Amino acid sequence: MRLAIDAMGGDFGPRATVGGSVEALQALPDLQVLLCGAREQLEDQLESISRVQAGVIDRITIIDAPVCLPDTLSPARALRLPAASSLHATLQAVAEGRADGCVSAGATGVLMAMARRQLGMIPGLSRPAISTAIPARGCGRCYLLDLGANIDSRPRHLLQFARMGAEMARAVDGVTRPRVALLNVATEPNRGERRVREADELLRQETNDHFDYHGFVEGDGLFSGVIDVAVCDGMVGNVALKSGEALIELLVERLSACFQHSWASRMVSVLARPALSRFRREFDPVRYNGASLLGLKKTVVKSHGSASMDGFGWAVRRAHCEVVGELTGKLAAALAADRHA
Amino acid sequence: MRLAIDAMGGDFGPRATVGGSVEALQALPDLQVLLCGAREQLEDQLESISRVQAGVIDRITIIDAPVCLPDTLSPARALRLPAASSLHATLQAVAEGRADGCVSAGATGVLMAMARRQLGMIPGLSRPAISTAIPARGCGRCYLLDLGANIDSRPRHLLQFARMGAEMARAVDGVTRPRVALLNVATEPNRGERRVREADELLRQETNDHFDYHGFVEGDGLFSGVIDVAVCDGMVGNVALKSGEALIELLVERLSACFQHSWASRMVSVLARPALSRFRREFDPVRYNGASLLGLKKTVVKSHGSASMDGFGWAVRRAHCEVVGELTGKLAAALAADRHA
Repeated sequence: MRLAIDAMGGDFGPRATVGGSVEALQALPDLQVLLCGAREQLEDQLESISRVQAGVIDRITIIDAPVCLPDTLSPARALRLPAASSLHATLQAVAEGRADGCVSAGATGVLMAMARRQLGMIPGLSRPAISTAIPARGCGRCYLLDLGANIDSRPRHLLQFARMGAEMARAVDGVTRPRVALLNVATEPNRGERRVREADELLRQETNDHFDYHGFVEGDGLFSGVIDVAVCDGMVGNVALKSGEALIELLVERLSACFQHSWASRMVSVLARPALSRFRREFDPVRYNGASLLGLKKTVVKSHGSASMDGFGWAVRRAHCEVVGELTGKLAAALAADRHA
Repeated sequence: MRLAIDAMGGDFGPRATVGGSVEALQALPDLQVLLCGAREQLEDQLESISRVQAGVIDRITIIDAPVCLPDTLSPARALRLPAASSLHATLQAVAEGRADGCVSAGATGVLMAMARRQLGMIPGLSRPAISTAIPARGCGRCYLLDLGANIDSRPRHLLQFARMGAEMARAVDGVTRPRVALLNVATEPNRGERRVREADELLRQETNDHFDYHGFVEGDGLFSGVIDVAVCDGMVGNVALKSGEALIELLVERLSACFQHSWASRMVSVLARPALSRFRREFDPVRYNGASLLGLKKTVVKSHGSASMDGFGWAVRRAHCEVVGELTGKLAAALAADRHA
């Protein structure tokens, strides 16, 4: 069980990725990592971390790949660059079987383009989709996809997203028959966006053993706990995710302000600290860091570019869960079985 | 200054609409209302309200229109019905100049279809758009549109939404040059959804004195306080609004749960009540009730179907603000000036 880490990606580079990897290694005794980046920087960073559990350092291998891709690089240009970057080395380790999956905090477009070329798509799927788990009632999470990799997507793409999301819920969370819904403006059939109505027809025609098709949900359905997977075009998913994250931030900020409002409320806020911390922790975006690039032959998890050490550690755990659950293999097998049926 | 009220619409009918209207009348001394509905029910409801300020009852006129449209009625069927419904009477009062605007908690599709026929569109606009103010940093609100009246909209529709939203911010909130943005998956030009990129070109070509075009914002931009109006297709806006409302509900619920977690936190929750109430009040969906149907010749505000008395009262206030701000007249004038320019 080995993950390759693009240690140079993201806003903080090795400062976040090395510490995050060490955190994940401490939490997951079966994990080994290949840190791909500038050897000296990575070694310095490792030395600077105090209190590392015994045995953790032994599970780290450094692959020297000093070139860091700038965030402003276009995917097309990135593909034309010589193969010296930390991201290229990371993906190559996976492609050659030296690692089972990988994590990068680099720019999404570049990561997608390079991952698609170096790892390839699972037969039957045309483009990677991005998915993440969002907090929900009851079962506690709902997979939302696509989150922006596929804009102007067609009905058959939405069908592919449904497949991918269902396999995620089954392989990673052990849901036997995931409940999958299409995001729409209404719950009644024959209403809403044309491509969503067409995807609805495709999903109804398809007799499948992979998931329960739940029909349409509206935006509030994302958090209701009645579905495991919500499928939408990348534009819709991206806006829902980013507006939701910003709304949580605004609410947490305003909650603090309400406790700073008067002398008395400031006193109470000291007493309320445990409850308020519990609340903040529950919706902390750091804990939801790690979006999956689905449809590739191997596990690729994208960490938020601005993720701290903690956040990056959660992205590594996410990749670990997907590899342990054998997500990509199961998705490929399910699609192959469909083609032969 | 007179508003017509569809007193039979919504889940609670006169129980919410009559009380809500009375609340608005108490808050707004220049307001008069025409309550359209079953006379006896309305009179009973008025009698049951205790503690009504002096002079409020004198500002209420009842128009007997006993037929209540069922929520399951399709817009097409509603248009073929004989003119006996409370909604028809409400719109007719506005069409004939007996009222300056109206409020209904009836089904959106039916309200839109009937309003369009009875009131007509402002020349230059093709279909009504729905907009509401969402909470934001700094200035405190951002108008989001469309919220679901226009699915599969085209670039020129997005341009119309920009016009309508800008006029709303100017007429109602007194913003001299509203900052208008297109919602997209990226902030860089030439990225994202095709129709959004095309609308971006239209907005850049247009030299206008009506608003500052701010380019693209992503989902987090809605709450950032840097824009006054966010424009998107109805599918995107609907999902953003409904998921946001549900997320707020989930967070408030979880916040309460965090304070019920232990004996100690339950004690603290008593002391924290004022701060927690202030927080809940700030994001209370009731206070944001009242979505505007923009583009019609007269002010039409849609209250949430499940709105309580309080919520309906806020929708009436919203309509009052739009009439006082002369929104529809100013929007018509701005569009006419453009055509002659």
